[in-house]
Amino acid sequence: MKKITRLFLALSLICVTMAMSHQKKTRIVFFGDSITQMGVNPGGYITRMNETLKGKGLDAQYELIGAGIGGNKIYDLYLRMDSDVLAKSPDIVVIWVGVNDVWHKASSGTGTDADKFEKFYTAVIKKLQAKNIRVFLTTPAAIGERTDFSNSQDGDLNYYANIIRRLAKENNCGLIDLRKSFLAYNLKNNPDNKESGILTTDRVHLNAAGNTLVADEMMKAIVAK
Amino acid sequence: MKKITRLFLALSLICVTMAMSHQKKTRIVFFGDSITQMGVNPGGYITRMNETLKGKGLDAQYELIGAGIGGNKIYDLYLRMDSDVLAKSPDIVVIWVGVNDVWHKASSGTGTDADKFEKFYTAVIKKLQAKNIRVFLTTPAAIGERTDFSNSQDGDLNYYANIIRRLAKENNCGLIDLRKSFLAYNLKNNPDNKESGILTTDRVHLNAAGNTLVADEMMKAIVAK
Amino acid sequence: MKKITRLFLALSLICVTMAMSHQKKTRIVFFGDSITQMGVNPGGYITRMNETLKGKGLDAQYELIGAGIGGNKIYDLYLRMDSDVLAKSPDIVVIWVGVNDVWHKASSGTGTDADKFEKFYTAVIKKLQAKNIRVFLTTPAAIGERTDFSNSQDGDLNYYANIIRRLAKENNCGLIDLRKSFLAYNLKNNPDNKESGILTTDRVHLNAAGNTLVADEMMKAIVAK
Amino acid sequence: MKKITRLFLALSLICVTMAMSHQKKTRIVFFGDSITQMGVNPGGYITRMNETLKGKGLDAQYELIGAGIGGNKIYDLYLRMDSDVLAKSPDIVVIWVGVNDVWHKASSGTGTDADKFEKFYTAVIKKLQAKNIRVFLTTPAAIGERTDFSNSQDGDLNYYANIIRRLAKENNCGLIDLRKSFLAYNLKNNPDNKESGILTTDRVHLNAAGNTLVADEMMKAIVAK
Repeated sequence: MKKITRLFLALSLICVTMAMSHQKKTRIVFFGDSITQMGVNPGGYITRMNETLKGKGLDAQYELIGAGIGGNKIYDLYLRMDSDVLAKSPDIVVIWVGVNDVWHKASSGTGTDADKFEKFYTAVIKKLQAKNIRVFLTTPAAIGERTDFSNSQDGDLNYYANIIRRLAKENNCGLIDLRKSFLAYNLKNNPDNKESGILTTDRVHLNAAGNTLVADEMMKAIVAK
Repeated sequence: MKKITRLFLALSLICVTMAMSHQKKTRIVFFGDSITQMGVNPGGYITRMNETLKGKGLDAQYELIGAGIGGNKIYDLYLRMDSDVLAKSPDIVVIWVGVNDVWHKASSGTGTDADKFEKFYTAVIKKLQAKNIRVFLTTPAAIGERTDFSNSQDGDLNYYANIIRRLAKENNCGLIDLRKSFLAYNLKNNPDNKESGILTTDRVHLNAAGNTLVADEMMKAIVAK
Repeated sequence: MKKITRLFLALSLICVTMAMSHQKKTRIVFFGDSITQMGVNPGGYITRMNETLKGKGLDAQYELIGAGIGGNKIYDLYLRMDSDVLAKSPDIVVIWVGVNDVWHKASSGTGTDADKFEKFYTAVIKKLQAKNIRVFLTTPAAIGERTDFSNSQDGDLNYYANIIRRLAKENNCGLIDLRKSFLAYNLKNNPDNKESGILTTDRVHLNAAGNTLVADEMMKAIVAK
Repeated sequence: MKKITRLFLALSLICVTMAMSHQKKTRIVFFGDSITQMGVNPGGYITRMNETLKGKGLDAQYELIGAGIGGNKIYDLYLRMDSDVLAKSPDIVVIWVGVNDVWHKASSGTGTDADKFEKFYTAVIKKLQAKNIRVFLTTPAAIGERTDFSNSQDGDLNYYANIIRRLAKENNCGLIDLRKSFLAYNLKNNPDNKESGILTTDRVHLNAAGNTLVADEMMKAIVAK
């Protein structure tokens, strides 16, 4: 074999390797509200996932993109999914929504009816799946960390979490059941039945332990071991 | 003994007997909202208690008075307690309130803040106890009968029930924990996690089984065996 | 000219006339909530417009299509506009929405925030105009007919009506200011400051006078004289 | 006349003067919510009234007492009127309440139904008048200063203000119609239809101009010229 041929072969090999490594980079969009918006901050759950991926030497294979906006409800996600999600051609989308749909009922009279929540949520899933995107659904973790279901919105949160669990099953989506994980953690670590301070700073948004728990649960669900 | 003396003795005996029988009649006022208002209807829980007392031959010893008004919250009870309760000089008052304090938050924006609920409830108890009235507190049974705490107001109902349980302890009142009884009954008899139809007609107001359960629980708590 | 030629000419004329008359038929979709859903009933405002068009001999030129669904808010319109409006290739769309966006704040805690209302409303307009559809906006007429602005939701209705008036101007849409027309009518015909019964049956839905007023206002705005 | 006699006469005169000046001191309790609670601060409307009285040399004739507690609604006033008002044996009570009864409907679902508002308000008036106290009622000034009735709670505020105006008439109470005064002032001084900053700092609580206006209106109504 001539020199020049060998050179070309070597170059080809490099190109293929690069192409393959490039091909392999799985793009994940995290689509949600203020909790996800804060997820890309230092210490945030998306930031932690990136660090974990690096630690495992998997950072070349995954690209994590935050697409959270404070105050968003399910219909806000529907309105902005073209520009904020589909435009980024993700392989995977993780939807985490529901807290504002419930919370705003009490705080400003502008929550989302359960039947409309399901309708818009289904529309979001269908539109993502039509683009061959793998979809993961997340249950709303908490509005208050008391473990005896005496947080004011527990009834609705349980109900909306049930809807999401059912939608995951019906639409063959992955399920990351944060509400279940948070309750289990609090049953062990919140003996005084406190409202916040265990996994959240303010009943809703994540503290360090909360970000770690969420990052761990997401890694388990999404990233192949 | 002369005839006239005997006559007087006989008359005295009759009077004493009447006085005693009159003395013994324990007057119980049931103080509450629409659930209690309906309690005096045929089949209502107060009506059933009367029938049970009759069956046990105890009807001469108790007088049951309904004082329920639809839509009442704790501060409504406070406003009308002089005219509707104290004016009747009861020996016992059973307070059953809380459903509207929670429900009206969602249905009309006019529920009761938890701290105010406790404040007015305490004022009602103190005013009754100042008249040497024995006071029984009742936890709000249900707004929805689902057993997985996915009824919309379960969070608040659990919280307000906790307040009432604590108030009973702190003020040495009897406690009739209907919320606990209803949940226990539903866990056995509501396998399909239905919203209503087990103990209520409409998630709140009692059907036949509900009236029976409440009457039984009240009899156990109030009437000496 | 031969017989056969004349026949063809005659046939051509008929075809052209039919084609033209067919071309001319302006298709109008009325896009809204329960008020519009009821508009196609006997006596409803859309039915009345059809009758008026017939009376003027204009019924061959217009096709009126009702697309109202009870309980709809602006984001419901956005979700279903492809299937319920665009699929019908209308020339004109009349949007009448806003009552539920405001009302549901108080009745079920699921109204629409003002900024989101504007955002979704703008998205609906843009999407219609991108298809060269002429768009008319309608202000929400009333939730209660008292004329001294003491109807519970008057503040929000005035605010959301202002948003719609501004959106009409900014987007070059026609404006049918029903809120203004209703108030003017009530100032003349509701001397006792009654809540309903003048133009509505129940503070919101139209009675005969209401349907007539709305039909008249729409005719004036949409149909060339 | 002997020296000693003159001395006694002089002393008597002083005593009588002191007694009279003491007798004359009219005690006014301002009974309300956070707006009144802030009224006793430097610059607050009660503080300003005291300064005005001093300027007129009338400070010896009036004693102004603030009895405002943040977040109070009409039933809170009813609950604490014995300890906070009647215990101070006032000659005059100025009631200023209603903002929270309306506002809390939207902010926390715990406002006051209009019919209950009237019921408790009437009970407060009756109880004060039974002690021969002169009662002044005040309409709720504002939740938002826009002048076109597009502040979110304007409908309810107008309605509750109407109730208060009627109660003043029916119960022969003085009326200080702050809602009317605020609107008149804003129509002159708020050409840009701003939400706050004219008479309030935050749509509800008084700025310097607001405290001055309220103090002036109260002076006019209560203090004989």
